[in-house]
Amino acid sequence: MRATVMYGAGDVRVETVPDAHLVEPTDAVVRVTRTAICGSDLWPYKSMPHTDTGRRMGHELIGVIDSVGADVQTLKVGQLVIAPFLISDGTCAFCREGVQPSCVHGARYGSDGVDGGQGEAVRVPYADGTLVVLPVGEDNALIPSLLTLSDVMSTGHHAAISARVGPGKTAAVIGDGAVGLCGVIAARRCGAERIILLGRHADRVALGKQFGATDIVSERGEAAVERVRELTGGAGAHSVLECVGLQESVLTAMDIARPGGAIGRVGVPEQDSIPVGRTFWKNVSVAGGPAPARAYIPQLLPDVLQGRIEPGRVFDRVASLDEVPDGYRAMNDRESIKVLIEL
Amino acid sequence: MRATVMYGAGDVRVETVPDAHLVEPTDAVVRVTRTAICGSDLWPYKSMPHTDTGRRMGHELIGVIDSVGADVQTLKVGQLVIAPFLISDGTCAFCREGVQPSCVHGARYGSDGVDGGQGEAVRVPYADGTLVVLPVGEDNALIPSLLTLSDVMSTGHHAAISARVGPGKTAAVIGDGAVGLCGVIAARRCGAERIILLGRHADRVALGKQFGATDIVSERGEAAVERVRELTGGAGAHSVLECVGLQESVLTAMDIARPGGAIGRVGVPEQDSIPVGRTFWKNVSVAGGPAPARAYIPQLLPDVLQGRIEPGRVFDRVASLDEVPDGYRAMNDRESIKVLIEL
Repeated sequence: MRATVMYGAGDVRVETVPDAHLVEPTDAVVRVTRTAICGSDLWPYKSMPHTDTGRRMGHELIGVIDSVGADVQTLKVGQLVIAPFLISDGTCAFCREGVQPSCVHGARYGSDGVDGGQGEAVRVPYADGTLVVLPVGEDNALIPSLLTLSDVMSTGHHAAISARVGPGKTAAVIGDGAVGLCGVIAARRCGAERIILLGRHADRVALGKQFGATDIVSERGEAAVERVRELTGGAGAHSVLECVGLQESVLTAMDIARPGGAIGRVGVPEQDSIPVGRTFWKNVSVAGGPAPARAYIPQLLPDVLQGRIEPGRVFDRVASLDEVPDGYRAMNDRESIKVLIEL
Repeated sequence: MRATVMYGAGDVRVETVPDAHLVEPTDAVVRVTRTAICGSDLWPYKSMPHTDTGRRMGHELIGVIDSVGADVQTLKVGQLVIAPFLISDGTCAFCREGVQPSCVHGARYGSDGVDGGQGEAVRVPYADGTLVVLPVGEDNALIPSLLTLSDVMSTGHHAAISARVGPGKTAAVIGDGAVGLCGVIAARRCGAERIILLGRHADRVALGKQFGATDIVSERGEAAVERVRELTGGAGAHSVLECVGLQESVLTAMDIARPGGAIGRVGVPEQDSIPVGRTFWKNVSVAGGPAPARAYIPQLLPDVLQGRIEPGRVFDRVASLDEVPDGYRAMNDRESIKVLIEL
């Protein structure tokens, strides 16, 4: 089969790889119908050292079940399914508590002997625990929005939940990438009265406004902090969704959080240390991490199916599998917010 | 009047100071009947550089209202009141949201022109917002427990709330000082099924067991982490109450927190930086700060009045005002957990 392999920074190829096939009795093989390129795929695209063996890429996918192992209970060949960006068994203590990213049998696409999502097919371990059946056909108009549930929409939702967004509150969303834009959707969905989007790309903040952002702050650093303070009567935002992960954006999050407020972090931390005094003295909580997409998909699914949220609008480019390398380039050059791959 | 003044590390004196008196129309003057020495008073006792002017000490007190300013609405001369460890106006946005430590008119005893609590009387600014009337006489047997509400019991409760303690959960309390012991009481009160107390002083952990600790871990550092993991089937504690503030104890808190769990920090941070990657990847939240004692006192008061909690048992020594310097020495030498001062 054909799949995406990265050999180093800027070197993405679509190649023939061994066909996905059942290994464990709890596996399913999914024929991929839609996948995507993630902002997090751009980190190795910018910095990965060259490797001769390459790394399989992609972790967002919708597809049709092609085969199931003998122990798979809930899934049937032919069903359309969505895969969260992490594999989880659905039965361990952490999965039962809704913390699937810490599943004791957890695994990632593209490593741990699992295929990457940017290819024709994927072996999915613990298929019963991982996959969610979709009640639509594979060419349904809602597919782009459904695909975002595998990562960016669930991640934006995790930021909102971790930042304790609620009715009447002011939320600030740091970052106008796909996750930040989904954070705006999530903040609105959770009832925020005011949503301040911190971003500086005209096309992205325009989409953010359509998603519900009430104010745009295009400054950065101390100027951004001042602007948010002005907008909030000096107090700051109750809920801050940190959707970038750079040290500067984390510091901004701490400085714009209102006393007693909450920061939801979903941007993968650039640095391991944060100056916690900034949050301690004003009783600001810091929560977040990898989103439990497997827990959120069933919660968000009705809103997508009934058209109440349209996160699929973050896709501004559609490409074929062979065009994946150019999709990486386009996202890295900020020509595109997010690329949808149709197979 | 007589009051406690610290002139430098190890140099605490009880001296004659100007009488407390009304300054603003929103002030009350409180004649102190009971006060206490706090673990946080020991930091300057260990390290404060010498000063010729001295620093007024003490921030936990119960007393009788001696006079009130013209604008005081809710308090009358002769009422017995408890003072939270911070002054707050009760009307600003942060006070209304229950974040009194961030009050826009906030002040501390012993600075900001306010008397210290370890003296015969105190001018209390924003008396209506700050003080809580007690429905008992000044010599009631419950006074020691009521006095803890001004700081250590409210702070232990804040750790439990920030760590999201709840029914059926496992809580770990780091620190067997007065705040940690009150954290045990709070964890039990919030319904924790299992309470692991990390402490190494025989008398203190014995009291912790009486307060509800189900397991004692006397190791420190990596050995403590291993022990807590053993006790929790490898998973760690849902809720970690960090009641110390040293860098080692904060790292321990992060390492023993269960994926998806929560750390409630009330120990004043020794260092400003924490390695947040440890919490990010396992979705552990970090919350806490100075406790909103003013918000918690009315919540905790019924439990003290009805004898359901007895935090006053953390006082293991009673002294007069003149004996305050020896009380500092006794707490610093760990002869005493916490000293109650009777006036």
